[in-house]
Amino acid sequence: MKKLGRHLIAEYADCSEEHLNDAKFLEACMLEAVRKSGATIVRSVFHQYAPQGVSGVVVIAESHMSIHTWPEYKYAAVDFFTCGQSVDPMKAYAYVKEQLQSHSGSVRELDRGIPSTTSEVLDHKPAAGLPRTNTAAM
Amino acid sequence: MKKLGRHLIAEYADCSEEHLNDAKFLEACMLEAVRKSGATIVRSVFHQYAPQGVSGVVVIAESHMSIHTWPEYKYAAVDFFTCGQSVDPMKAYAYVKEQLQSHSGSVRELDRGIPSTTSEVLDHKPAAGLPRTNTAAM
Repeated sequence: MKKLGRHLIAEYADCSEEHLNDAKFLEACMLEAVRKSGATIVRSVFHQYAPQGVSGVVVIAESHMSIHTWPEYKYAAVDFFTCGQSVDPMKAYAYVKEQLQSHSGSVRELDRGIPSTTSEVLDHKPAAGLPRTNTAAM
Repeated sequence: MKKLGRHLIAEYADCSEEHLNDAKFLEACMLEAVRKSGATIVRSVFHQYAPQGVSGVVVIAESHMSIHTWPEYKYAAVDFFTCGQSVDPMKAYAYVKEQLQSHSGSVRELDRGIPSTTSEVLDHKPAAGLPRTNTAAM
């Protein structure tokens, strides 16, 4: 593969049911997770469902991080997709695990990029694509 | 696993460079892909980078679909995360492949849900969480 990024697929189980139903808490948590990873926030969108559950996505200059919660199962499905060498999505994963008070779960890591018979790391060049002003949490 | 959803991880290579740098085209493409899959649009956010590249996410009642493009490599990283039995993310995958005029690539499918030693399919109950009005493409 001509690798451009890393995609962490996280299942957080046995979480705080209260936190999983609090869109404001989850947005603050995911934005801070982005910062912990060293990534750059572009936009975030969070949506509270009735009677329960939240979906949220933070678009970052290096791809995205997303969360979907099922408070009734004390479960959150989260992914951290980052490109470039300067970002560490595992720091975001660890921070979210702590914040959700998750006591079990799993994480898988996938390489993302162009399928190829040769191995290579491609340049992401994120700096060129940054917005002039940070439009986080608009 | 106590399964709640399916997550398709798609690498589209050899795409139309022009389409990969057109945020309006890509947003229309992803919204139509959501409809083809049978999912319900909640919100969409698309961002055009300078000098090139687009990131976009559609939050759906059944989770999300996202796209990140590198026109300089004719490559797009896309994921389709859907929950519930009534949605078929492969229809979205096929539609996007056609629209991007992708001539090569790959797709992986992951089960999403609560890690467990037993196999079970959990109810997603999307209907309970739908917004009163559709707020697509706000």
